[in-house]
Order: sequence, then structure tokens, then C-alpha cells
Amino acid sequence: MLTAENRTVQVGSVKIGAGQPVAVIAGPCSVESQEGLDSIAREVKAAGALILRGGTYKLRTSPYSFQGLGEEGLKMLCAAGKSYDMPVVSEIISENDIEKYTKYVDMLQIGARNMQNVALLKAAGRSGKPVLLKRGMSATVEEWIMAAEYIINEGNPDVIMCERGIRTFENATRNTFDPAAIAIVKMQTGLPVIADPSHAAGNWELVEAISLAAIAAGADGLLIEVHDHPDEAMSDGTQSLKPGNFTALMEKARPVARAVGREM
Amino acid sequence: MLTAENRTVQVGSVKIGAGQPVAVIAGPCSVESQEGLDSIAREVKAAGALILRGGTYKLRTSPYSFQGLGEEGLKMLCAAGKSYDMPVVSEIISENDIEKYTKYVDMLQIGARNMQNVALLKAAGRSGKPVLLKRGMSATVEEWIMAAEYIINEGNPDVIMCERGIRTFENATRNTFDPAAIAIVKMQTGLPVIADPSHAAGNWELVEAISLAAIAAGADGLLIEVHDHPDEAMSDGTQSLKPGNFTALMEKARPVARAVGREM
Amino acid sequence: MLTAENRTVQVGSVKIGAGQPVAVIAGPCSVESQEGLDSIAREVKAAGALILRGGTYKLRTSPYSFQGLGEEGLKMLCAAGKSYDMPVVSEIISENDIEKYTKYVDMLQIGARNMQNVALLKAAGRSGKPVLLKRGMSATVEEWIMAAEYIINEGNPDVIMCERGIRTFENATRNTFDPAAIAIVKMQTGLPVIADPSHAAGNWELVEAISLAAIAAGADGLLIEVHDHPDEAMSDGTQSLKPGNFTALMEKARPVARAVGREM
Amino acid sequence: MLTAENRTVQVGSVKIGAGQPVAVIAGPCSVESQEGLDSIAREVKAAGALILRGGTYKLRTSPYSFQGLGEEGLKMLCAAGKSYDMPVVSEIISENDIEKYTKYVDMLQIGARNMQNVALLKAAGRSGKPVLLKRGMSATVEEWIMAAEYIINEGNPDVIMCERGIRTFENATRNTFDPAAIAIVKMQTGLPVIADPSHAAGNWELVEAISLAAIAAGADGLLIEVHDHPDEAMSDGTQSLKPGNFTALMEKARPVARAVGREM
Repeated sequence: MLTAENRTVQVGSVKIGAGQPVAVIAGPCSVESQEGLDSIAREVKAAGALILRGGTYKLRTSPYSFQGLGEEGLKMLCAAGKSYDMPVVSEIISENDIEKYTKYVDMLQIGARNMQNVALLKAAGRSGKPVLLKRGMSATVEEWIMAAEYIINEGNPDVIMCERGIRTFENATRNTFDPAAIAIVKMQTGLPVIADPSHAAGNWELVEAISLAAIAAGADGLLIEVHDHPDEAMSDGTQSLKPGNFTALMEKARPVARAVGREM
Repeated sequence: MLTAENRTVQVGSVKIGAGQPVAVIAGPCSVESQEGLDSIAREVKAAGALILRGGTYKLRTSPYSFQGLGEEGLKMLCAAGKSYDMPVVSEIISENDIEKYTKYVDMLQIGARNMQNVALLKAAGRSGKPVLLKRGMSATVEEWIMAAEYIINEGNPDVIMCERGIRTFENATRNTFDPAAIAIVKMQTGLPVIADPSHAAGNWELVEAISLAAIAAGADGLLIEVHDHPDEAMSDGTQSLKPGNFTALMEKARPVARAVGREM
Repeated sequence: MLTAENRTVQVGSVKIGAGQPVAVIAGPCSVESQEGLDSIAREVKAAGALILRGGTYKLRTSPYSFQGLGEEGLKMLCAAGKSYDMPVVSEIISENDIEKYTKYVDMLQIGARNMQNVALLKAAGRSGKPVLLKRGMSATVEEWIMAAEYIINEGNPDVIMCERGIRTFENATRNTFDPAAIAIVKMQTGLPVIADPSHAAGNWELVEAISLAAIAAGADGLLIEVHDHPDEAMSDGTQSLKPGNFTALMEKARPVARAVGREM
Repeated sequence: MLTAENRTVQVGSVKIGAGQPVAVIAGPCSVESQEGLDSIAREVKAAGALILRGGTYKLRTSPYSFQGLGEEGLKMLCAAGKSYDMPVVSEIISENDIEKYTKYVDMLQIGARNMQNVALLKAAGRSGKPVLLKRGMSATVEEWIMAAEYIINEGNPDVIMCERGIRTFENATRNTFDPAAIAIVKMQTGLPVIADPSHAAGNWELVEAISLAAIAAGADGLLIEVHDHPDEAMSDGTQSLKPGNFTALMEKARPVARAVGREM
């Protein structure tokens, strides 16, 4: 069971957690093509991102929306990670896909909609891979920690928590980013906590303010959507940064990280 | 895709939907023993319940809480249904359990925490069984309807929607029951909509008011937790009605159903 | 301080509370002209409404929206009440308007935005008039009851509580109507509780379902916006019933009231 | 009407807004005695606070809670401000108290519960004093800006906005602090925006994380509750910092301010 002791989680060659540099995970919402992905990977790597993200089996609200490239997408993500020497992470949406994912990715992501999908949590707990566990859109901090316990209870201590905003009455943002949750989870569990400003904001113009707030509040990393042509993205275009803006964000984030005693 | 045409869903011998009598599904939160279940089944049947419910694979917030009797529970539920001539329903929490469930139950229940577990929705859509789809605790009506589309899109039109309250700032109840959602789903989709006053209330004393409100707002049925000894229940005791109170509720509910033109 | 003993509040000639008939308060969101108001008053009276409502000093979100006719509106409301023999109620938004209001109205309404305006609550408590206290849009039941205590603590026991929905993430309705709150306030305080389905719905098509739900949950009355020409109303047109629909609602509501043992 | 042009508001000798140093307002929740207040004033001034706060007419949820010292409290606050050469701010809860406040304070504070008390907003707009306008606990950013318009529309452009967290389902904090709201208000209105981490946190241990997040997100200042003996405070003790912790916070906040290009 969780204690308050600080933990570090290793994802490929990258260490995330207290005492480690602030780690940035970046990439497109969905993997759309090898060329597009490679281009984004090269750019985010150059700007300082350490891990590459990309959606492959997409969990969409509507069955009539784009559902991702599936295993082809996983292969492209794996290839891009090798080309640019970055560990890769992708969201898994079925307990039956564990084997497929462990072949291609360095970390499994469990999304907000599946935070209480116990069958998936347990399968991830037996996978041998680190797990990036997003907070459910209406999960209390306590429920989120309990979801982590389902993974850890299967013998897998390598859980990274991801605050991505909660659902409230406020519609000026897609979700309301909760900086105090970062501090609470770190105090209570010692687990690494990263922030997803893209899903909180729902709007690329607000990604910077939320990113800097998250780092100042103690986040161990960021998860950011980047796309070369956000207007043509097959999902979440409005909240994706262009590579140039991502680079600018990284430059603004470093001094904030240093101000709270962290490298980046 | 859904249209506004009224639909009736048949669960064993019971028809649910517009123009049908208001159907009551009752039983314990968790199946705990054959004797206990049989006793509750006999009592709720006598009071007018048409379908028997009972949890078997429980989806709990914490991995350290009681997780249900599993397949043994399904067998007990099936046996009780046969003994008292009632169709049975139980919540399914893994896409890999479909075969097991279809052997024992007349309807699959998908719980609030899994409302956006797309892998499970699709598996239920291919199961050939009617599906009781609870609203996610922070799902908008639109998202809830989209979750139904995932089931229907696999070729299964037999979806019954279940309003069980949403998560809000108010803590006087476990969830805030949303009567307008019943009216909206019926208007927009024609699907049957039932209400779960037990999970909305979180407190047995409020179950009656919410039940009557739901019927007045147009609900096609109720899903109610009943337990002989709520104080000793292994889950959700505080919100479970004793059989005597359940009988009293049925007596108060019938005139309200008739007042809105429904039998019960 | 409040106890759980049932109370009846007299508004002009009308008694509201446990054991009394379900009382309907109806009228336009804003008083716009004497002729328009008289016409609505005549129609709602004919359909069975007992009390006439009409906004005069409007509390709008924006200073650039219509702010009401002020004292001229109060005079029109008072005149219409006399013409059709109905007590009248209007929302007061400043503690300095108490004298003006006590001249013209039979009950002071304190709106959701002012539920915690303590200066106004205290002034209403010293006014000698019954007070209709709306629940704040994000007030817990406990805070709402505490607001009533501010009025009662000044020596005025004649408080009628009004559930009008709370602010949640759901946007299919303007607010989420909370039927359990009616039951809780009645159990804990014995005060009369009425429901405002118009502000909860935000859409006239949903007013009926919420009204019937409220009565079934135990409401002692309804507060409903009615307008002859909703499309031309200066405020809240989309949620106002036309007189014909109001009459139809009254006809559907009566059997529900009777089903829970109330006249109407 | 508001435009996006940056504004600076002068409070006594202190300038707040874009391009100005991050300004800290500190002091006790309630003024309790001259000695206690003087001691806190001396300590927060030494740590770098520029403005002194203190509640005098308290707006409490319950009429049976401590309601503040009233005008005596204002006199003490004014005296402490003079002794330590700090402008002072206190919350006003009645439009009829404007004259009393303008005698003693340099800035009027309108609290979350009164954010839509239009009579008070207008009175503050005619007062000639700068106004600190807290966001309502369930106000959207748009409604909050509209409340500012009510003040500005009376001829008073000197409004400072204060984000203090919103009411959500999460109970681990008193309110959910919304860092994106700071960025949005600054982008849309150019008004200075400060943050109240104390009311957001509800717990002194979380004040630091929220304070640093707010500054990183662009806040022009902080409003922080400080008390010598939080355990004995007549209100809000659990969220008040001891002077030593306040000093430590200031030392951590300065490098974060500098990291985003601000003095402090």
C-alpha cells in the first residue's frame, strides 16, 4: 500500500520523480502517419522533450469519431521513438491489448475515462511496464490514489500520476486544472506527478500559464500535445501547440523549474 | 444511430419502455449468500418488483474493499431468479466476462465508472443481451447517449438508460439526482430510462422522495437496493431499504405512476 | 433556531406549507407593461395559480441588460394583484428598497445571487413580510438553511424555501434540479419548500417534467414563469410557458399532487 | 466597457498590475484586537507584504458564528496601517457601509458571496476607492468580468480581480484553485488579477503550492491570511499561515516571480 516515501519511476532511460529533472512528454494527440510523427518527434526532442507520446487506439466520446490507427499506430510510435532515441507512451483502452502494447511502448497510459476501469488497472499492474495514470475527470484525489493502489496491489510500483484538470461548471477551459492536487498526491503518496496542461486548457493559448503553474506547484513533468498543423489534426487540434510555441514554452518553463529547485 | 422513436426493451418476460408499466428492479447491492438472496427475492417479488438485481463482481473504489463473490454470485443470482420467476441483472466489469454473464443473467449492467469503457460497451453490444447503461457520475446527457451509441452501433438496440445522479458540490446526498435528464433522454432517443434512487440518495430515508420524483418525471422503471439487514450489508448498507420500507415505497409509487398515466 | 416542526406561511390570503394545497405562483419574469401583466394574471388565475409573480428590479449578470421597470413595475404588479385578487411577490435586490417593497408586495423574494447577502437577509428579517428564499446556485442545503436562519434570527419566521436547481457541469439544462433537497429541507426544518422549474430547466419543454417531479418529491408549491409572447420577452423567454401550456401543466400536476395526498 | 488593455491600480502608495512587482496583501482573517493586529502587521511587513488586510464586518455562513468587530475593527485596521505604513483593505458587506469604510480603508473588498450583489457593486463603483473583487464561488469567468463591469460602469476603473478557487466536487481542498482563470481575465480585460491561496486551500500546508502556481500563471499579487496563533483564531484558523511560514513562503515566491519576469 502507498506510503508518503518519494519514488522515482524509470521510463526507458528517463527517470521521473522527486529529485529528478522536470521531464517533458510531448507529441501529437493521435499518431496519423510516420512522416508526421517523425517530424514532430524531431522537433520536440530538439526543444528538450524526453519522452514521445502518441495516441493509437483512441477513446472517443462518439463511436462516429476517428478511433485511431490501432497497431499500425503503435508500430509508427515505436519506430519514431527508436529514430529519435526517446522512450514512448500511448494510451491503452482494453485489458486485452496489454501484450500488443508491451511490445511497442515503454509506458502504458490509462486515460481519464478509464481511471476506474478496474479490469484494465489490474492488467496494467501485471504488465511489467510503468503506468501513467490520468486523474478521472470527476475523480477526487482520494479515488485517484485508490486507482493507483489497484495497479500497485498487483505488484507494479511504477505508477506516475497525471493531473489533467477536473470537470466543473466553468466552460472557459475544457477542464479546471487543480494545482493543489499535485501537492496533495506528492505529500500523501510520494508518487511522481506530472501535469497535462493541454487537456485542462482545451485551448493552446492557455497551455503556457497552466504549465508554469504546474511546475511551480511541484509537478515532476508535463504531458503536452504538439502538432505541426493543429488545424488539420484528426483530434484535439485546438489544444495542440505548434512546435515553435512548444519550444517557446520550454524556454519559459526552465527558469520556473530552477526557481523551485529543479533542473529541466 | 439513435432517433426519437420510442423503444421497448424486453428483459426475460418483462417489457420496459414507453407505454409499458413502470418496472421495478430490486435486490441487494451485493449477492452475499443464496439464503439471503432468496429471502430478499421473495420479499421484493411479493411487493411487486419484476426483476432481481445483485452485484457479483463488484467495482469498488478501493482494492482493499469487498470485491464480490464472482461466478459463485452469478450462479446464486441465476438460481434465485429461477426460484422466484424473475429475470436477473448484474453489473459486468470486464469485457472478458461476457460469456460468463450471458450464461447466468438476462440483462448486463454497465456501471457509472465504466460508462466510457469503450471496450466493454462494444463487447456488450455484441453480447445479444439487453444492457442497462448507467450514467457516468460526471457524464453529460450527451456523453451518456453517445455511450449508448457504442452499444447500439454493434448491432444491439436493447439499451435501457439509468439515471443515478451526478457528482456535484452537494454532499447532503451521495449524488444529485437529475430528473430533467430522464425527460431529455426520452425526448431525444426514445430509449427506456429508469432511475436508481439508491445511489443518488446514498441514504435510505431519501429513496422515497427521489423514486416518486423519477416516476413523475417519466421514468420507465426503478432500480432499488433492498437488504434484510442493511447494517450488516457488505456494501452500500446505508442506502438500502429494508423489505418493509420497500413495500411501503411500492404502495406510494403506484398512485404516482397512475397520475402520469402508467400502470405499475 | 430552526427545528423540524412543520410550519405554514401565510401570503395574503394563501397558506403555504405541509397540509396545505400545493400553491402555484406564476407570472412573467419581468413586469413589462400593465396590459401585458394583467393579461397574464387573468390567464394564470383562470388556470389555478394563487399568487402572481413579476420582476421589477432585475438582477442581471450584465449591467448592459434590461434592469427592470423599478418602482413603476411594483405599482403595476400591485395593481394587477388587486384586479385579479391575487397576492403578489417580487424579487428585492437592495436592503434599501424594503420600504418601497412592503408598500406594494405581499412577499419579498430573495434571489439565488443574493442568498448570502447577509445585509439583505437581515433587512428582510425585519420587514414584517413573508420571504421567499431561493437557493443559491452553488449553495449546499446546509448553507441555504443557514441563510434562512439569518432571516428568522431577526424575528421573522415566515420563510418559504425555493429549490431552483444548482450549478453543475451539465449544460443540457440551465441548472440541475435537486429533488432530494426538497425532502431534506422539509425533514430538517419543517419550512415550506416550493420549486422553481423554470430556472432549473432554462427551457420551457422541460418545465413539466421538473414540476411533476417536484410535487412528487413533496414540494408545497411551484414558481413558474409564464409569458404571452415568450419570443418577445425582455428576459428569460426561452424558459417561459405560454398560458396554454401553463394550463396544461396545471391539469397534469393536479393528479400527481393528489397521488401524494395533496390538494392543488 | 472593459478592453484588453493593461491597467495598473494604485492602492495608497502601492501599484498593482502588469509591469509592477507582485504585490502581497497579508493579515488576519478577522481583526481581533489592536495588539494582535499590530503584531501581525509588523511581521508581514518585515517579510515583504505591502498591504494589510483584516476582516471587520464578517460575512459568515451562520448567524451564530463570530460576526466581526465592526467599526471598532476598521479603526484598529486603519491604525495598524498607519503604524506600519501599509495601505489597508477590508471586506464590505453592505452598500450602506460605504462612507464608514472610505474613512478607514484604502481599498474595498467585495467577497465571493457578494460578487453578484449588484447594489453593493454599484455603491462600490461610486465610492472613489479601488475595489478588490473576489470571484464568486461558482461564478464563471464571464460572470466575474460582468460583475467588474457593474463597478466600472459607475465610473470607477480601479478594480483588482481576485481568484480564490471555485466550488467543485473535490473536498481535499476548500475550493479548487483555477490558475487558467488568472490568464483568461488578464488576456480579456487587462485588469490586475491577484490570487487568494488561503481560501482556495482551506489548509495552510497547501498555501505555498497554490501561491507559487498563481505567480507562475501570471498573478499580479497574493492575498494571504496570517495569524500568530492560528489555533486560537476566531475564524479560518486552519488556513492561516504563522508569520514564520509566511516569511518562508515569501522567500520561495521571489525566485518564481523573477522566473516569470517580475519583481516581488
